[in-house]
Amino acid sequence: MREVAIVGIGMTPVDEHWDKSIRELAAEAVLLALEDAQRESVDALFVGNMLSGLISQQENLGALVADWTGLRYTEAIKVEAACSSGAAAVRQALIAVASGYIDSAIAVGVEKMTEARGSEVTAALATAADADYEVAHGVSFVALNALIMQRYMHEYGWQHAHFAPFSINAHANALTNPYARLREKIDEQDYAKAKMIAYPINLLDASPIGDGAAAVLLVPRETLRKNGKPIIKIAGSAAATDSIAIHDRKDPLWLRAAEISAKKAFSQAGVGPKEIDFFELHDAFSIMSALSLEACGFAQRGQGPRLALEGQITLKGKLPITTMGGLKARGHPVGATGVYQIVEAVLQLRGAAGENQVPDAKIGMTQNIGGSGSNIITHILVRE
Amino acid sequence: MREVAIVGIGMTPVDEHWDKSIRELAAEAVLLALEDAQRESVDALFVGNMLSGLISQQENLGALVADWTGLRYTEAIKVEAACSSGAAAVRQALIAVASGYIDSAIAVGVEKMTEARGSEVTAALATAADADYEVAHGVSFVALNALIMQRYMHEYGWQHAHFAPFSINAHANALTNPYARLREKIDEQDYAKAKMIAYPINLLDASPIGDGAAAVLLVPRETLRKNGKPIIKIAGSAAATDSIAIHDRKDPLWLRAAEISAKKAFSQAGVGPKEIDFFELHDAFSIMSALSLEACGFAQRGQGPRLALEGQITLKGKLPITTMGGLKARGHPVGATGVYQIVEAVLQLRGAAGENQVPDAKIGMTQNIGGSGSNIITHILVRE
Repeated sequence: MREVAIVGIGMTPVDEHWDKSIRELAAEAVLLALEDAQRESVDALFVGNMLSGLISQQENLGALVADWTGLRYTEAIKVEAACSSGAAAVRQALIAVASGYIDSAIAVGVEKMTEARGSEVTAALATAADADYEVAHGVSFVALNALIMQRYMHEYGWQHAHFAPFSINAHANALTNPYARLREKIDEQDYAKAKMIAYPINLLDASPIGDGAAAVLLVPRETLRKNGKPIIKIAGSAAATDSIAIHDRKDPLWLRAAEISAKKAFSQAGVGPKEIDFFELHDAFSIMSALSLEACGFAQRGQGPRLALEGQITLKGKLPITTMGGLKARGHPVGATGVYQIVEAVLQLRGAAGENQVPDAKIGMTQNIGGSGSNIITHILVRE
Repeated sequence: MREVAIVGIGMTPVDEHWDKSIRELAAEAVLLALEDAQRESVDALFVGNMLSGLISQQENLGALVADWTGLRYTEAIKVEAACSSGAAAVRQALIAVASGYIDSAIAVGVEKMTEARGSEVTAALATAADADYEVAHGVSFVALNALIMQRYMHEYGWQHAHFAPFSINAHANALTNPYARLREKIDEQDYAKAKMIAYPINLLDASPIGDGAAAVLLVPRETLRKNGKPIIKIAGSAAATDSIAIHDRKDPLWLRAAEISAKKAFSQAGVGPKEIDFFELHDAFSIMSALSLEACGFAQRGQGPRLALEGQITLKGKLPITTMGGLKARGHPVGATGVYQIVEAVLQLRGAAGENQVPDAKIGMTQNIGGSGSNIITHILVRE
């Protein structure tokens, strides 16, 4: 099993891209990653995507994107794991390069969502939940997360206002990220007054959908020489599932799949939570930030919001999270999100995150969550 | 890179399974594969599927199937490559086990199609074609294949009747396969009189859709001991893409992706077309059988039908194909088909194919085609 490094990254802004089809979005990110790596081709392409069939009436996305980027004949597939499709594609690319089956791979996450009506997007996103035992009862994806948040507040005694720092931090970081969808500063008052969606989740608890694509290019570490530039390795990668339906879980307030995948990734990388310099977590809803911090060992059970309230999650804090705006403010083009997280982690580790730079970042962690915690993939990246 | 063996297989009959949901179909095949391998769990699950989002309003199929089969918490994703999703899932499982990242994996292909209306299935299958440049013009998937067949007949001087042996052979082999969807003998007259769908493709040129699931369980070869039972290894595995839109190809009558992936698989296995004892090819339409035989080196360009007319493709011929009925008569539950092919190849190599046994089969080849030749995956299996 070979060590694998990320030598190219590319992404489009997350936005409403009315002028670009799904293949064009994906190709833009792929070509940027090739250019960044100063390469013209790769051996394989893994496309992370959740909704192209339902929203763009287009499957077979692997071959489509390969062809459109000038990689015709190159091996290519689509990987789907709901909102964790992006990280799943990166993990498949990693395994393929590590195995020796291929010598270079691109993982590109892409999603085009804003061309569909809101109700269509809501229905499409609900396919991440259990069609027979959750969606059949009329519950939407945000409503499922609202149930979790309400239970969490009841169980651990938190008020809605205690979740504000998660969203405020994400928006503050997005201000200086040109690829972010929502570059607007918000404060406690904005958060308190935001429009209710599904109690207790309001508009500023929820991440916005968007169109976008992000790509990473992977090669064996052994093929690289240190020429003064940092080498970014994938030191840990693990995935785990849980029941899709929340009611089937023993504890709906504990992300077991996050715990399993984080522990495996920590073990592979030979580090623990204390060594992590920043954490790109999956803040699709603010409650998910708290649950992720707890399951990964950064906070005690039920104490996730404390980290945020103490200011530890900002760029200058002990554990900066969502350093480029996170899902909340960079935006959440679902199948692309996991790759955005990794591209952003690479920027941090290269020291190329501009005003969003975490000082002397050496070890970064990303976590991409599919469904309401049913498919979770954790990566640890290290600057060598 | 470790050698990988198939130690468990399972499948459901291909049929209209009104009493089983998509998760139940998949679970049936997975549990049979576990039982066959005398194991209770695996490290990872790869679900090959094309249409669950469009037809069953269910994505996140990896986590869903893992949970339903008692493999909760196990790493699991869905892999999509149009009609080659099944073989793509097998290839991902193979790479994961070969890499050393995991020690055992199940690839399960599953599709549930017959609960949707015919027009919905036609629209869903068209997502394998180019939405913007083919489907936008109103062309269906069968119509695209009809264009290829008509051009082929014109270019090489074949009559429609010359394709009859492909369908007659498939139906003859399905007669004794209890898992086959169409267990009816047909002859030249039936073929000639069959209802026209899209000229020159008639009902007996086309494979039927269906519901079904098939699974294989993979482990490292090095963990197995020879106890009198044959060991079935994956000796070759390769994938390639082509443009999705047929009009973008230099030669629409040549399956370049089949040629590339077959050559790579031959090279890995250290064999050539002459060493292949049987070939499970992708006869979604009879024209595809001819094109596949040619691109893989079993027939000269434009001469695919000759092999069939000379009787070489039957169970007692020089190169038996579609030995259990193929897509044409076993049935074509699209995302599952590629795994059915591999399960059937394992039955042949184990000497467990009953009345369909190819005498002394030692080396088998399978080829799964996505789109009209845009994503093609070839496997070579060897009995040790």
